[in-house]
Amino acid sequence: MEARYSIVFYFLMLLALSSAFAFPSKKQYKPCKHLVLYFHDIIYNGKNAGNATSAIVAAPDGANLTILAGQFHFGNIAVFDDPITLDNNLHSKPVGRAQGLYIYDTKNTFTSWLGFTFVLNSTDHQGSINFSGADPIMVKSRDISIVGGTGDFFMHRGIATIMTDAFEGEVYFRLRVDIKFYECW
Amino acid sequence: MEARYSIVFYFLMLLALSSAFAFPSKKQYKPCKHLVLYFHDIIYNGKNAGNATSAIVAAPDGANLTILAGQFHFGNIAVFDDPITLDNNLHSKPVGRAQGLYIYDTKNTFTSWLGFTFVLNSTDHQGSINFSGADPIMVKSRDISIVGGTGDFFMHRGIATIMTDAFEGEVYFRLRVDIKFYECW
Amino acid sequence: MEARYSIVFYFLMLLALSSAFAFPSKKQYKPCKHLVLYFHDIIYNGKNAGNATSAIVAAPDGANLTILAGQFHFGNIAVFDDPITLDNNLHSKPVGRAQGLYIYDTKNTFTSWLGFTFVLNSTDHQGSINFSGADPIMVKSRDISIVGGTGDFFMHRGIATIMTDAFEGEVYFRLRVDIKFYECW
Repeated sequence: MEARYSIVFYFLMLLALSSAFAFPSKKQYKPCKHLVLYFHDIIYNGKNAGNATSAIVAAPDGANLTILAGQFHFGNIAVFDDPITLDNNLHSKPVGRAQGLYIYDTKNTFTSWLGFTFVLNSTDHQGSINFSGADPIMVKSRDISIVGGTGDFFMHRGIATIMTDAFEGEVYFRLRVDIKFYECW
Repeated sequence: MEARYSIVFYFLMLLALSSAFAFPSKKQYKPCKHLVLYFHDIIYNGKNAGNATSAIVAAPDGANLTILAGQFHFGNIAVFDDPITLDNNLHSKPVGRAQGLYIYDTKNTFTSWLGFTFVLNSTDHQGSINFSGADPIMVKSRDISIVGGTGDFFMHRGIATIMTDAFEGEVYFRLRVDIKFYECW
Repeated sequence: MEARYSIVFYFLMLLALSSAFAFPSKKQYKPCKHLVLYFHDIIYNGKNAGNATSAIVAAPDGANLTILAGQFHFGNIAVFDDPITLDNNLHSKPVGRAQGLYIYDTKNTFTSWLGFTFVLNSTDHQGSINFSGADPIMVKSRDISIVGGTGDFFMHRGIATIMTDAFEGEVYFRLRVDIKFYECW
């Protein structure tokens, strides 16, 4: 009798264990932490030194560093230190800085590659979040990887869904970043 | 009697649990997902604007942007948007694009550092895979990290084994990428 | 009686399981592997070609490639291949190379963004460790993410705590890197 109970129990536990590791469909995942933040990029164009937050620092042969290159800016690298805000207002009090680089990497449409960090320093959040991924700019909503974090985001991983919230010519753009952590520590 | 059964069982379960977390040797790991893909890089040299897929955008002092720098190209950064194919034929129908940057980073041999994304868009795969790592080019087979993924590769991590499958002078190279995911969701 | 034992045991096991997954506070984490290493960066300034280990390869408009840019070097990208040592002596036998890039990314203080790899090749360690993150240089101790590894560090993740151990003007700096893996395979 006891043995039978134990066997039943053994299978129940195996079931419990396997359900903790098997993920039948990604649809069911819920983030263990969720943040929505905005960041604002003002690229230097030779005339806006005072309020520019990013600069072109590399360009393909024949291009210069104050005008984004032809061919959909292919080959431009920009370095940025952009304010992060809780809403879509550039003049809201920043809760941190988005720092890193973006690269324009296609000749026949606008796409970029992103390597950057959110450095958050507010009453709500102290820590950094590291991002990496391809950004097909013309797509309304696109996903990149959150590859790690520090401080409040110690060892976190997840997905960031990026949307272009606004842009003005080729000088200003604002991105809405929907930060969904699926691995929290 | 029952207590004894339970104690035995307890240790069996502990054993089961610990074996799920202890990895005595990495040799035993099997990928949970496995892909082999090729990508093709044609670097711009001032004469091949029509079919170049990458461009030198940064170079050390004294070098230019149409000729890879001396000293094993140390200091060159190239931005690329390369076709990905299922076989080693440049003219096969692409299943996606490899986008990002590579950097030549040694003065006395050929090594590079890679930060790029596979953006896959085919009937088989929809999603992106993010790579990062050192590439000691002269070694036949070298490993870099897969640091995240989106879409079909949601939250995946793994190892990519890279081999130079072909090269022609300093204009064309083809890499075979053996993508082994060890963390699938 | 047996059923009661099993129920008690069931809750004990659930407790054991949940404690393996629930992390009430990050304070309690202990690294599963721990390394302390140093690396040494000597930036090319036009006169030290012989022993420079890094070079400025991108700069904002108006700057050049042998002098770090004004405004806290904002916009400079340096590519490096730096020796890694076990102690703080530049002339100790290297155990590997730190390879990748750093970017100066703020106009009103010194901060950088790092994307690089430790390629270790010694009797103790064979493998690579990939790093990514923001480095607020003026802060004594700062954390970046370890986003993956290969070889002995297969699939590892963790946190690297960086301290500036020494610097000489704008030509030499030495970083102490406290590598703490929290995910070992």
